[in-house]
Amino acid sequence: MSTEPSSAPSSTTPPVPREPVDGSASTATSGLAARLDDLRREYAALQARGLRLDLTRGKPSAEQLDLSEPLLALPGEGAHTAEDGTDTRNYGGLAGLPELRRIFAELLGVPTEQLLAQGTASLTLMYDTVVQALLFGVPGSERPWSREEQVTFVCPVPGYDRHFAICEELGIRMVTVPMTSDGPDAEAVAELVASDPSIKGLWVVPTYANPDGSVVSEAVARRLVSMPAAAPDFRIFWDNAYAVHHLTEHETKTANALQLAEEAGNPDRVLMYASTSKITFAGSGVAFFAASPTNVAWFTKHLGIRSIGPDKVNHLRHASFFGDAEGVRAHMRRHREILAPKFSAVTSILAERLGDLGVASWTNPDGGYFVSVDVAPGTASRVVQLAKEAGIALTPAGATFPYGRDPQDRNIRLAPTMPPLEEVQVAMDGVATCILLAAAEAATPV
Amino acid sequence: MSTEPSSAPSSTTPPVPREPVDGSASTATSGLAARLDDLRREYAALQARGLRLDLTRGKPSAEQLDLSEPLLALPGEGAHTAEDGTDTRNYGGLAGLPELRRIFAELLGVPTEQLLAQGTASLTLMYDTVVQALLFGVPGSERPWSREEQVTFVCPVPGYDRHFAICEELGIRMVTVPMTSDGPDAEAVAELVASDPSIKGLWVVPTYANPDGSVVSEAVARRLVSMPAAAPDFRIFWDNAYAVHHLTEHETKTANALQLAEEAGNPDRVLMYASTSKITFAGSGVAFFAASPTNVAWFTKHLGIRSIGPDKVNHLRHASFFGDAEGVRAHMRRHREILAPKFSAVTSILAERLGDLGVASWTNPDGGYFVSVDVAPGTASRVVQLAKEAGIALTPAGATFPYGRDPQDRNIRLAPTMPPLEEVQVAMDGVATCILLAAAEAATPV
Repeated sequence: MSTEPSSAPSSTTPPVPREPVDGSASTATSGLAARLDDLRREYAALQARGLRLDLTRGKPSAEQLDLSEPLLALPGEGAHTAEDGTDTRNYGGLAGLPELRRIFAELLGVPTEQLLAQGTASLTLMYDTVVQALLFGVPGSERPWSREEQVTFVCPVPGYDRHFAICEELGIRMVTVPMTSDGPDAEAVAELVASDPSIKGLWVVPTYANPDGSVVSEAVARRLVSMPAAAPDFRIFWDNAYAVHHLTEHETKTANALQLAEEAGNPDRVLMYASTSKITFAGSGVAFFAASPTNVAWFTKHLGIRSIGPDKVNHLRHASFFGDAEGVRAHMRRHREILAPKFSAVTSILAERLGDLGVASWTNPDGGYFVSVDVAPGTASRVVQLAKEAGIALTPAGATFPYGRDPQDRNIRLAPTMPPLEEVQVAMDGVATCILLAAAEAATPV
Repeated sequence: MSTEPSSAPSSTTPPVPREPVDGSASTATSGLAARLDDLRREYAALQARGLRLDLTRGKPSAEQLDLSEPLLALPGEGAHTAEDGTDTRNYGGLAGLPELRRIFAELLGVPTEQLLAQGTASLTLMYDTVVQALLFGVPGSERPWSREEQVTFVCPVPGYDRHFAICEELGIRMVTVPMTSDGPDAEAVAELVASDPSIKGLWVVPTYANPDGSVVSEAVARRLVSMPAAAPDFRIFWDNAYAVHHLTEHETKTANALQLAEEAGNPDRVLMYASTSKITFAGSGVAFFAASPTNVAWFTKHLGIRSIGPDKVNHLRHASFFGDAEGVRAHMRRHREILAPKFSAVTSILAERLGDLGVASWTNPDGGYFVSVDVAPGTASRVVQLAKEAGIALTPAGATFPYGRDPQDRNIRLAPTMPPLEEVQVAMDGVATCILLAAAEAATPV
């Protein structure tokens, strides 16, 4: 394990699966044992501050939400007519408002007619897709997934806890593969998918992954969309939640999975999701679904039974706020100005406090909402507990793994977006103390 | 069959199941045969007008939507904080915004804590409830409904086509019972539900039913919530879509099914749905779910996997628009002023053109969105076809029955809310001509 902050997403080395920490780390942490008393005093001082800080969830800050404040008075009285003359206040238009679909089709690199604008949450669209697959099967299914003896999804880890929760709720078995700096370990995925016909799905967060910030490379994307699959109805759930959520001036363009899948002769393999939850208002934005014409027709057919159409006024509100795709990009640069200093604070405090001690490694993401930290094996839960008892709420240890079980108990997801910068700084200094103390405790013979 | 317009909802006679038309009607229609040539000429003149009118769906008119136009600029810049201090622009609050829930809890007569405010469509909430029941079972289920050999819902007819579509899509068998002027024929329902353990559900539109406008009486409600059920997990889907949608000064108060169910010792039997789709904007309103604490906890548990919370900004928008329950009532009176003349036009034109001919009977609703017409048996499809060929779109014949099959081919649902009054008048005069011509054709020996 490197003693320097890893910078996985911008690395130029070939993809390397996450590995258990090596002996050098143990050696390094055992050096910490000598500092145990000092660290205990430091931690007691931290507790004495009576903090109330929260780095648990990827929520936008009030300052970010303020960027979209004009939405609260849009589209404005009298402005209820879409460009095609539709009265957005009335029923209908199952696919969503064309002018908003056009904007996000450009941003996501998909044809407008293959992109649906729906409700407020892509999470709901993903859940509903899996439910539809269970109840009816997807195009190419021999039967509804619920009639299969077993349904398995491949889950790259660390990953997004709400993806895993969907699987758990719906009785879908999860098998894990490691994340690399280029996305899921494609060879590991390919081996599983080729041999096990119960594998119907793969979760992927292609851009600035939750939590490790990696971006799926073109090569990995090509492999995933073209690899042979034992199940004829295998699907990749391409959750492009952070497609435009850059933290640097380099605005990464993710591989165009839908197009690559079509070129590979597997046009129906990819289901893409996105939303404005972290662009405008979390919970009051617009969610999108993109896929092949066959998948879109399948999804729409069932959607039409449960809905007469999405909230077109909210679609118009958003279209009128952004104007065009460039409006979204400009808006995201303003988010970046707020977020980049917070992420910089996280990684620089970690480097300063832990950089030469070999007790942890972490990501240095170019976008997205998270920093992923690997602490000394077996101490992640203890770090989270220590932080909690010092008034710093962290995402529960294990949350980035299926069933909340990190086999090495070492991954912690940090979400620095919501608190103000000063609080991020204070919290991260405290987190560093907790990581050190937990490592020192672990290295100390009982 | 009466030759006068029936006025089922305001009738004081005991509930009478809908009956096939009697001989007198046949006699009356056979008298029409002599007028066949006249009616054909009249119909040709109607066709020559080149109309483009639409009475198909229960959509609000532009004039009604204008009543809620201020919503388009609400809650207004800077106004994003809920009364409890919540920033509505961010994630969370799965149950919906308390101030909006309070307003509709009062209107629906349920405790606020048992009422969830969710997305834009109660149809979606109903679909999702049935899906949850299929996947997980409801409280009291022995197994998920999808693992039962058969699941059956009781469907009062004529009824709401989208309820039937949910059952059809999800493989739920439908058995019908007649509607009466007091709601579903409670004795017919009770007999089925007591004897058939596959019966898990009953659809009810308790207030101003779609399409026949009847209101469930207190006695019928008591019977439905207290009758023995062979299935321990039997549920009544109480779709209170028109709870406050009065067409007269008499603002009907529907039986409080949740409270009655609790009193009857069956607190979990009733699931209530409502929305503002026909109060504010159709498709951009707020939908509600109310049930026993046990059912609410069950629903919320699964909801929490697919959603981080509903659109609280839209909740705040609505709460701020209405102010309180009286604000909703006052708003609905303005709807009434627009709608009452249209319904009056429908029933008075039908009375004038058909009143003494014995070829049809129809409802005279005190609220809701529809007039239900029974034409000469075997002619409903023909009436709809004739109307279509004269440029008047009607809901397809049979739509008010499961699988779109009206066994007597006689029921037609008229939806007069959307077109302007003058168009309703023109359309209804045309519809009357079609009803007469179809009856005359049917009475004419070939």
